[in-house]
Amino acid sequence: MEAIGVDRMRRAAVVAIGDELVSGQTVDTNSAWLSRRLEELGAAVTGHWVVADDAKATADAIAAAARSAGWVVVTGGLGPTPDDLTRQAAADLLGQPLQERPDALEQIQERFRRLNRRMADINRVQALFPASAGVLVNPIGTAPGLRFSVGGAECFCLPGVPREMRMMFDDTVAGVIAAGIGDGRCRLTRTVHTFGIGESDLAERLGDLLARGTNPQVGTTAGGGSVSVRIYALGDTREQARRMLDDAERRVRDGVGEFCFGCDDQTLESVVGELLRRRGQTLALAESCTGGLLGEMITAVPGSSDYFVAGLTAYANAAKVALLGVEESLLAEHGAVSEPVAEAMARNAHARTGADWALSITGIAGPDGGSADKPVGLVFIGLAGPGGASARRYVFPGDRETVRTRAARTALSLLWRALTVEPE
Amino acid sequence: MEAIGVDRMRRAAVVAIGDELVSGQTVDTNSAWLSRRLEELGAAVTGHWVVADDAKATADAIAAAARSAGWVVVTGGLGPTPDDLTRQAAADLLGQPLQERPDALEQIQERFRRLNRRMADINRVQALFPASAGVLVNPIGTAPGLRFSVGGAECFCLPGVPREMRMMFDDTVAGVIAAGIGDGRCRLTRTVHTFGIGESDLAERLGDLLARGTNPQVGTTAGGGSVSVRIYALGDTREQARRMLDDAERRVRDGVGEFCFGCDDQTLESVVGELLRRRGQTLALAESCTGGLLGEMITAVPGSSDYFVAGLTAYANAAKVALLGVEESLLAEHGAVSEPVAEAMARNAHARTGADWALSITGIAGPDGGSADKPVGLVFIGLAGPGGASARRYVFPGDRETVRTRAARTALSLLWRALTVEPE
Repeated sequence: MEAIGVDRMRRAAVVAIGDELVSGQTVDTNSAWLSRRLEELGAAVTGHWVVADDAKATADAIAAAARSAGWVVVTGGLGPTPDDLTRQAAADLLGQPLQERPDALEQIQERFRRLNRRMADINRVQALFPASAGVLVNPIGTAPGLRFSVGGAECFCLPGVPREMRMMFDDTVAGVIAAGIGDGRCRLTRTVHTFGIGESDLAERLGDLLARGTNPQVGTTAGGGSVSVRIYALGDTREQARRMLDDAERRVRDGVGEFCFGCDDQTLESVVGELLRRRGQTLALAESCTGGLLGEMITAVPGSSDYFVAGLTAYANAAKVALLGVEESLLAEHGAVSEPVAEAMARNAHARTGADWALSITGIAGPDGGSADKPVGLVFIGLAGPGGASARRYVFPGDRETVRTRAARTALSLLWRALTVEPE
Repeated sequence: MEAIGVDRMRRAAVVAIGDELVSGQTVDTNSAWLSRRLEELGAAVTGHWVVADDAKATADAIAAAARSAGWVVVTGGLGPTPDDLTRQAAADLLGQPLQERPDALEQIQERFRRLNRRMADINRVQALFPASAGVLVNPIGTAPGLRFSVGGAECFCLPGVPREMRMMFDDTVAGVIAAGIGDGRCRLTRTVHTFGIGESDLAERLGDLLARGTNPQVGTTAGGGSVSVRIYALGDTREQARRMLDDAERRVRDGVGEFCFGCDDQTLESVVGELLRRRGQTLALAESCTGGLLGEMITAVPGSSDYFVAGLTAYANAAKVALLGVEESLLAEHGAVSEPVAEAMARNAHARTGADWALSITGIAGPDGGSADKPVGLVFIGLAGPGGASARRYVFPGDRETVRTRAARTALSLLWRALTVEPE
């Protein structure tokens, strides 16, 4: 695990601990979050090590991570229960016994006092530290963190609870790493998101731009109907790195510009929201097989109340009639999963809510409910707006979750296209 | 990374490849999925190695994974673009050059023929294999997989696209591993899910049961308002391991039974759905700050159309009046985020949809919109059912996503409690 052209203190590694991660009961979102922050600070991430609640496995992973990078961030295993073994792993790595640290104990007791709760005896183990380790304050949880040096790397051990881990990283760790990285070369990244073009077609259009070992370096990732183009640039100055990103982005847009909907943190839902806000227009939804997923995605964007009015999830046919005014004859003649019903759902949501735009989704998400005529994955998506209402037919491959997600994202892409093409 | 008491061919490791994973642009869900499948097959997972699109990093990770386990599953890096370097890593590990393999090329060409699409020249690199590697068929994508032996471990390289990876694992890899594990000792796991009790309180109630180094071994994980209790048992026979699980589960339920809502794959939404189905009852929703999230969770469960009728997402105040019949005077007097409005939302959704039960959520998810009086995280949850309607006040800590998720899960827990307590 080696990052080329970046010296050790510009490399970071992440260790995530938990039986639930290794056994797959929980998806490891902490490592991705930490990686984004570390890259923002200018550190190249060499890898993630995900290990079980086991002191030896944890110590081995921290040691391996420390060989690959100058900064190691560890998450998990600081709780009060006997399966929380990060403290023991640190003691083993440092060759020092665990001892009760009065300042850590005080921090834990203070936390319980503020919550007006009795401290369970079990929480006392969270004050055990190896002698040379520093105590990191946890402002919102009981588990203090550890900081120590091992094999020339600086290690920070944070809790596994995402909210506590994130706050402690931002409050305490980020500043140390930013200062430690110093004023060397500047590494910047940008991601350009496309929707509606396949990865191979995109690669052919971009050609040499995707060659490896170049600077800036450009790569692609496909998923959920979209392909993202990532650009990494290493410059002598921030300004130079930024110019390299700008230049590479221009070449990406020259090749596949009509499919590019945004960059970096932008999503279809945030871009659509921004377009609606700029026009002072509003949106309503009529969902069936997605059950609220599209509304959930749209309202995950802070400030979406500026343009999102209402969603009508008519899961049962009776609800399609009662809530959305879909004519029973239409349902009887074409079935709930049909172009006329999708169009009626969009048109009626548009009319009933008074929103400027309405999207509708009706389909068969599976695993049951499919037929030869109407297979699982068949989805109709309707759009109603200033120019009238229409609906389109899609067949999405994949399982229930995949079909629903593809349907919701495709609905957003239709509205994005309409907002981009139609005059304001 | 070592699993105690399990011989090598009962250990598996996962390697996930991708710049987007290491940089945190994408969360690694593939490793968790593979781990669940591997544990189901009876293999203990030693760890996940997550590395960049780099041939050396990939080869190093496969080698380290192969030292820890008898089975290594690799995902990612098999696409047609120059940043897909798993084939090169395999060639480097095996000390064999890459050569075009006619059967792999035929598989790729056949795939394009079936899709009625032209094969891009770039896809030809997906037919390059080291001489001793086997070709794994990809029935739904262009990337064939690789199988080879290295350092005494069997390695399977699958694509990173989740749908393709999953199908290839189930179709091709699972059978080989199941057969290879043979008839040694049997390792089973079970997870008991609780809601409404904190991790420390739960640990105190369970006491010695959580001691490490025991068999069965019991551990806890907290997240999103629930705490899960995981039980691992290693038995000479499947029957013995199952009895050990049953016994440990009984001890967990003796300690915290009133908080246990389900096991393993069960979620609050699946358990609530099962209870509704058993009673022949139905559910409707009135959401505000969750924007459809609760509906999305409920309808993520296959077959939820048996009991889920409709969801009314009234994001704007005008929509609360028009769609849900909340009186304007109530909104003016108490504000949209208030107990009376939450109660009215639930009561009116109940009446308007004719469902047996209705849940409502109104709150301030943040980051903006809070005040001293009504802070971010303030949420009122209403429940209407055969016994009338009521609402309760909560303040959830965390960011927008956390508040929304906690609100939705808490709403489900209220209905779960009602369905458990109230006579049918």
